[in-house]
Amino acid sequence: MMYNTSAGIVPGKINVHLVPHSHDDVGWLKTVDQYYVGSNNSIQVACVQNVLDSLIPALVADKNRKFIYVEQAITHGFFALLSFDFLLEINGGMCMHDEAAPHYIDMIDQTTLGHRYIKEQFNVTPRIGWQIDPFGHSAVQAYLLSAEVGFDFLFFARIDYQDRAKRINEKTLEVVWRASKSLGSSAQIMTGISPKNYEPPSDNFYFEVGDTSPIVQDDMNLFDYNVPERVNDFVSAAIAQANITRTNHIMWTMGTDFKYQYAHTWFRQMDKFIHYVNQDGRVNALYSTPSMYIDAKYAANESWPLKTDDFFPYADRENAYWTGYFTSRPALKGYVRTMSAYYLAARQLEFFKGRNEVGLSTDSLADALALVQHHDAVSGTEKQHVADDYAKRLSIGYTEAEKVVAASLACLTEFSKNGCVNPITNFQQANLLSLAPVFTLRCPLLNISYCPPSEVDLSSGKSLVVVVYNPLGWKREDIIRIPVINENVTVKDSKGKVIESQLLPLLKDSMSLRNSYSTAYLGKSTNVTPSYWLAFSASVPPLGFNTYIISSAKQAASHSGMRTVYKSQISQNDTIEVGPGNLKLLYSGKRAKLMRYINSKTSVNKLLEQSYIYYRGDDGSKDLQPSGAYIFRPNGTYPIEPEGQVTRVYKGKDHAEIEFTVGPIPIDDGIGKEVVTQITSNMISNKTFYTDSSGRDFIERIRDYRKDWNLEVNQPIAGNYYPVNLGIYMKDNSSELSILVDRSVGGSSIADGQLELMLHRRLVADDNRGVSEALNETVCVFDKCEGLTIIGKYYLRIDPVGEAAKWRRSFGQEIYSPFLLAFTEQDGDHWANSHLATYSAMDTTYVLPDNVALITLQELDSGKVLLRLAHLYEIEEDTDLSVMSSVELKKISKVTEMNLSANQERAVMEKKRLVWRVEGSSKEQPTAVRGSPVDPAKLVVELAPMEIRTFVIEFYSERGSFSDALYRRSNLRRKATFSLP
Amino acid sequence: MMYNTSAGIVPGKINVHLVPHSHDDVGWLKTVDQYYVGSNNSIQVACVQNVLDSLIPALVADKNRKFIYVEQAITHGFFALLSFDFLLEINGGMCMHDEAAPHYIDMIDQTTLGHRYIKEQFNVTPRIGWQIDPFGHSAVQAYLLSAEVGFDFLFFARIDYQDRAKRINEKTLEVVWRASKSLGSSAQIMTGISPKNYEPPSDNFYFEVGDTSPIVQDDMNLFDYNVPERVNDFVSAAIAQANITRTNHIMWTMGTDFKYQYAHTWFRQMDKFIHYVNQDGRVNALYSTPSMYIDAKYAANESWPLKTDDFFPYADRENAYWTGYFTSRPALKGYVRTMSAYYLAARQLEFFKGRNEVGLSTDSLADALALVQHHDAVSGTEKQHVADDYAKRLSIGYTEAEKVVAASLACLTEFSKNGCVNPITNFQQANLLSLAPVFTLRCPLLNISYCPPSEVDLSSGKSLVVVVYNPLGWKREDIIRIPVINENVTVKDSKGKVIESQLLPLLKDSMSLRNSYSTAYLGKSTNVTPSYWLAFSASVPPLGFNTYIISSAKQAASHSGMRTVYKSQISQNDTIEVGPGNLKLLYSGKRAKLMRYINSKTSVNKLLEQSYIYYRGDDGSKDLQPSGAYIFRPNGTYPIEPEGQVTRVYKGKDHAEIEFTVGPIPIDDGIGKEVVTQITSNMISNKTFYTDSSGRDFIERIRDYRKDWNLEVNQPIAGNYYPVNLGIYMKDNSSELSILVDRSVGGSSIADGQLELMLHRRLVADDNRGVSEALNETVCVFDKCEGLTIIGKYYLRIDPVGEAAKWRRSFGQEIYSPFLLAFTEQDGDHWANSHLATYSAMDTTYVLPDNVALITLQELDSGKVLLRLAHLYEIEEDTDLSVMSSVELKKISKVTEMNLSANQERAVMEKKRLVWRVEGSSKEQPTAVRGSPVDPAKLVVELAPMEIRTFVIEFYSERGSFSDALYRRSNLRRKATFSLP
Repeated sequence: MMYNTSAGIVPGKINVHLVPHSHDDVGWLKTVDQYYVGSNNSIQVACVQNVLDSLIPALVADKNRKFIYVEQAITHGFFALLSFDFLLEINGGMCMHDEAAPHYIDMIDQTTLGHRYIKEQFNVTPRIGWQIDPFGHSAVQAYLLSAEVGFDFLFFARIDYQDRAKRINEKTLEVVWRASKSLGSSAQIMTGISPKNYEPPSDNFYFEVGDTSPIVQDDMNLFDYNVPERVNDFVSAAIAQANITRTNHIMWTMGTDFKYQYAHTWFRQMDKFIHYVNQDGRVNALYSTPSMYIDAKYAANESWPLKTDDFFPYADRENAYWTGYFTSRPALKGYVRTMSAYYLAARQLEFFKGRNEVGLSTDSLADALALVQHHDAVSGTEKQHVADDYAKRLSIGYTEAEKVVAASLACLTEFSKNGCVNPITNFQQANLLSLAPVFTLRCPLLNISYCPPSEVDLSSGKSLVVVVYNPLGWKREDIIRIPVINENVTVKDSKGKVIESQLLPLLKDSMSLRNSYSTAYLGKSTNVTPSYWLAFSASVPPLGFNTYIISSAKQAASHSGMRTVYKSQISQNDTIEVGPGNLKLLYSGKRAKLMRYINSKTSVNKLLEQSYIYYRGDDGSKDLQPSGAYIFRPNGTYPIEPEGQVTRVYKGKDHAEIEFTVGPIPIDDGIGKEVVTQITSNMISNKTFYTDSSGRDFIERIRDYRKDWNLEVNQPIAGNYYPVNLGIYMKDNSSELSILVDRSVGGSSIADGQLELMLHRRLVADDNRGVSEALNETVCVFDKCEGLTIIGKYYLRIDPVGEAAKWRRSFGQEIYSPFLLAFTEQDGDHWANSHLATYSAMDTTYVLPDNVALITLQELDSGKVLLRLAHLYEIEEDTDLSVMSSVELKKISKVTEMNLSANQERAVMEKKRLVWRVEGSSKEQPTAVRGSPVDPAKLVVELAPMEIRTFVIEFYSERGSFSDALYRRSNLRRKATFSLP
Repeated sequence: MMYNTSAGIVPGKINVHLVPHSHDDVGWLKTVDQYYVGSNNSIQVACVQNVLDSLIPALVADKNRKFIYVEQAITHGFFALLSFDFLLEINGGMCMHDEAAPHYIDMIDQTTLGHRYIKEQFNVTPRIGWQIDPFGHSAVQAYLLSAEVGFDFLFFARIDYQDRAKRINEKTLEVVWRASKSLGSSAQIMTGISPKNYEPPSDNFYFEVGDTSPIVQDDMNLFDYNVPERVNDFVSAAIAQANITRTNHIMWTMGTDFKYQYAHTWFRQMDKFIHYVNQDGRVNALYSTPSMYIDAKYAANESWPLKTDDFFPYADRENAYWTGYFTSRPALKGYVRTMSAYYLAARQLEFFKGRNEVGLSTDSLADALALVQHHDAVSGTEKQHVADDYAKRLSIGYTEAEKVVAASLACLTEFSKNGCVNPITNFQQANLLSLAPVFTLRCPLLNISYCPPSEVDLSSGKSLVVVVYNPLGWKREDIIRIPVINENVTVKDSKGKVIESQLLPLLKDSMSLRNSYSTAYLGKSTNVTPSYWLAFSASVPPLGFNTYIISSAKQAASHSGMRTVYKSQISQNDTIEVGPGNLKLLYSGKRAKLMRYINSKTSVNKLLEQSYIYYRGDDGSKDLQPSGAYIFRPNGTYPIEPEGQVTRVYKGKDHAEIEFTVGPIPIDDGIGKEVVTQITSNMISNKTFYTDSSGRDFIERIRDYRKDWNLEVNQPIAGNYYPVNLGIYMKDNSSELSILVDRSVGGSSIADGQLELMLHRRLVADDNRGVSEALNETVCVFDKCEGLTIIGKYYLRIDPVGEAAKWRRSFGQEIYSPFLLAFTEQDGDHWANSHLATYSAMDTTYVLPDNVALITLQELDSGKVLLRLAHLYEIEEDTDLSVMSSVELKKISKVTEMNLSANQERAVMEKKRLVWRVEGSSKEQPTAVRGSPVDPAKLVVELAPMEIRTFVIEFYSERGSFSDALYRRSNLRRKATFSLP
């Protein structure tokens, strides 16, 4: 039997766009590799190879059939032989990233990786954002990762159940989403929300091997012929959906996660439906894609409702707010953020050295980081063994990137002696590098006071050389803290001058954590135990390094700047004042409770309390909805007496740094607990607070309120939680209280004058959203396991109202991009005699403007360089800095402005962009301010508030062969120079 | 990655023959159509279309891959485009028939249907018997349906667990099976028994989509590379199997029921195993088929152990004897037997009329009958809705066949007026037949006293014409019993002579059953209620008919032979003697208990009791093994006071006919019950009794004993049950007590002198063998359901020892092939004036020899005729009749002797047959006696004991066009003529 599947769009009829699709999570219940090869099927029946192997014959068999696919990472290289463009039209990133926990830089990087790959391999430019599965949707996803990438349409499924009900009722499931108030209509995106989920319209239309939907039985020679009934089912479902949809085009998402393992089973039934439904004639069914669908929508010339802000938080039903995952797996979230920053810096150093054509590179770190942006990775909603797999991949990528960084620093510091080289194999690299200093960077466990390269015995006369790299475009001073074993050490700068340093005893708790965790992670005990933290302030030029020499004080001139620890120690007095500079924190009582925040410079003087509480995780006994990896459902609030929390105040820094140690969370009582810190002031915050969108724009949040519908409050705590990637703040008439974070967490303001962050969660029940594991992270030393302890930091500052943005934006960049440390040893301390001790890739007279950050500097495979500059401020955010800024590029032969993901020229993208009509002309904004196109003669890059501009730049001299490595090295140095116009 | 899958056999190594296979039950948990299209997946994930659609690309992709497939019925027509002979090398029947419940004629018919189809369509002759799933294996399967069909090998999996253990221990899983003592080594078959089941060698080698066996992960770029471990798994499993197998060839059955839904998933893993295992080199792995395997075995020139008799009963573990299914669904089993007989007769009548090239035929009955021989059909082990589907198919086939029969009888009786026609369309048929009498045959509910065509009011002067057809090759007298509504009726023979008849009142219980069951099956109440059974003796020539006219006695001459009923009625006397002829049954007591059996002619005089008991079905509370559809597990024996049982003794018949009515079996007490009749004598049967194999050879059974191993008895009742298709008997020094049955049942002799038959079962628990339903058959009148009532018959006779076979064989044929009745009405009673009233397809002087039955007479599509003659006696069974017999064919232009399934010439088959060596020359029998080849000049067919000979015969004049129908009709008459030499 041949079926007529050739239907196109039929005007005047309901057109049912059947969009065959699947997405294969790059890790969730199984690891990405297990999903790919189909192992571990006892956990979940999923094998991507089956999908890929069966799909192509099915598509070849009938050219009318369509299929769309996301999550490039898992199919890498597969489609090489194909010419089915539609396979690649959606998303195109390495994964379907989460939208709450990832930082926008990671989102850009992973999308760019996928988009450039698809472009190079298949010459395809994805048109559609397909975020069907993430658990809420961020403004950054809409305006940056959709509009700025050049998508014509963004489609997803998960929005608040109350929101959806209203949108169904009002036919507003399809909207124009204008998510950036700075970029306005210049970065808006047509957005579709599924009426139910991303699956077929009812339980009756699933056709995986083993699915129980009635197949279309059209063989009259057999019993149970059911064509009329099935056609009626189809038509009914189509009419029902058409009744809540504008225009006569509706889309049916025919598939779901990991389906089409034998693709034929779906296509066989869809073939029949198209054939018989079109014979019936009441509606028109066709094989389609989101592109075909959105082009049909566009052709209808309809006006659409406007949507601003974002789609957080997400609840799929009453009492089921998916706000727990904002904090789930805080160690993984912290590791991802650390690696993200490392990758940014490593790419810079890789570029300075010259990218290897083969051999070591930052690529495997890039791949791992792309992978963990997945909506069941950094989100913390995967099974434990999968989380372990992600960490392993990051670690492998990091280890390789670290070698690139070491090689680059070796080459840069040895400049005068050997010059940079471009080794083409590891073997050659090893040979050549034997001439250069060997840098050790392995301090990934610095947070537990474990850093073998700094824990060297200096008493015998050795010096420890610390090269401090600053990946920011600004000159920067910051405190270095490393564990040391000697009591009397001195720190000298690159000019040989002894600088002030502090030696702080390692606390007993830290020591104990160091010992057990290093054993847990390394499988053996450490044989050296440092006694102190050595702290000193380093000053480093932009995109460059400075060098510090640490040696035994006995041998060095003995004017050490050592002093005793200065921190919020518990005292017997009634009140303690802490703070070496403008900022003073006042503590009171036996337990040294924070009472007051005073900044003598800004005259801020505020009552301020800091406390820890835990929410008891609901066990689901009422309605089978426990608190779990996804869902936050508190059942009671309980205070915690803090132990092991440290608050640091630095001279010259007008913020407090709070280092928390949370864990093991006890669950012996069978009760899950979610630990939160609360900062309480007497500010009249009027239910209002602000959280960032993916680390970028701040969005106003109002407690127990949604802009888009009348919120029915059933979870007064969980329903007010939002993701925090950069920070959270509140304000009143006089001041702003801001908190910045070191990783993605959940945060809220449950009471006026109060902000809170959820720091750690340990639960005993699964929350019935598929992961089928309680979120109960443990660490095992040999066979003894206990709950995971989290060490992290957040930063707190109160500014006069209107003056807080500068700190949030500038210091936010410093938190994201800490110094990168490299260590080597030397006999004596004449390092500077033979090495380049300080370096900047910029002209020494130049730093980037305060409102601009360099977020990508990366040599591409082509030898060209990818450059991204980001304006850090929104419109009206800061009086001085929410303005157009500009950066001049120098000594560049060619600059091409690209779209955000660098898979097409910006101008081409703008030209193709569909322009959608918005309901009600009053909602039209004035055209947003944007930087002008770059004049190739002037090479000036203008950046308007919140603008990110992406360029591919070429230099006068292209990379040559291995033999001109020396020439290239100096050339590379040149080409990394920026200066003011 | 390309895998080397080209391995052949490697001498000196263990050769692991990977045999990819599946078999798709033609009904079990779902109906055959549901399995085919893949509907009803909530019951079981199974879709044969998936298998077929995915298989061919997989085989085309690599010509080294193999696959074998059984159960033709479900794939009918599919392989039309293929040239993969190996797909068709096994079984080749329409289904993998059961071996306990089917009659050998049905087994032959269904195999012939499949074999001839495969031969015609693909020119393939299956070589291998592949009975992997049936629950025990019959002698008839071995010597008839394997050896006589021309197979070189029979393979199966299910044998008694104790038997298997011993065979594993002694390396005797592969044997030469010499199953017929009459035909001996001339019909033996090389037989392989799987070491475990018909699945892969361990849980580690299943590769269906969703299976959890570890896949071979050979991508070094991914985590979890496991090639060495998987190769080790393979080699270990191979060595383990080689250690219990003779020769260095072992077979792995790679698949199981309904697998290969996405065939690629299996082949991908097997490709890898073959590649890496052969790289490893310890064993040799290859894609193979049972043919390749058995040829390799044969080449090894090994000697093999000898096996005789059969493999019943089957227990898969302690207390789990699969002997319940011998009786499960007795109504279905009865219906199948009835339809089998009807099909045999209908084919004869179809042949006499001339087979239609289009339009109505007996084909759909043939298809339905073939289907229900399946090992989860007539076995009674399917779900209820599937049993209903089988019954529906039989009913549809019957309805069509009935029209063929009516047309044939119309044409034969109207001979002098119109002559036979060969209508080519139903329309024409209707037109032409308007001239002929319209016969109504619809009495399938005669067993519940419902027969509309006989229930006509004759008081107005109408006569009822009853044409009685005898499908046997012998002249025959038998009692006709039909319900009538008039009180005064008379029966005349075809010459107008009034003959003796009886009018018996319908019992109240029968009436009530008639009313409720006719309502249940027809959906409406009947409007006429007959008051009587009319019984008269009909005498019919071989392969012919006689006519009887029933009319109102008032109008007819009034010497009616009416008399009162003569049956075992309850009396108040102490002893009643019942029996009009030689046989007298003595009853005693108030409840008229049978006491004694006396035959005045043979001087048999025996104490004899007949009783009913029930076994309580074990509920599995001890070890989760309840009694169920498959398994018989009694837990206690309880007597039943019989009601509604009738014993009939006829003049001129020296046996008792017992009609039992069992049901509804009460289960209100939550206890399943299995109802058994016991016949108890004082014979010294010495633990020994005899049951037939598939209705043919009788096999000696000894209680609590197995010939092949020392039986460990754990179920002294269930473990002694055997299938009974024809009969069961026991003997002592003086006499033989035989019971013959009207359908397949289970039977045994649990005590010396006693025989028992299980008649009906109603259970409340599932027995955990997959069907997942309790065997609890109900009948619903509107919405009111109650347990199914079974009405059936068995026949009992005691003969002097050595003289019983004649009755068992001859009367056995009469039970299998009852008269076929056709009714029409006429005004007055001058039928014979205008119609042919008596007819025989044989020369009037001829009948078949007493020891020969005509088991097939069928016109083939080709116009040729298929003829099968069966010798009915085993060697040494009867002094007179266990001898060579002969039949002469006449007026035939060509006769070709075929193998049993008629897909090859007998001579060709014999020439190809592999000759296997048997261990120990002493076990060699003298060559069996067989009939000589038919001399084309003489046309004499010799038949040795138990021999069945199959011929395709051609006549001088081939079928012409429609216009020569009249000519053909007389020609057909001629060609159906046989006579003695």
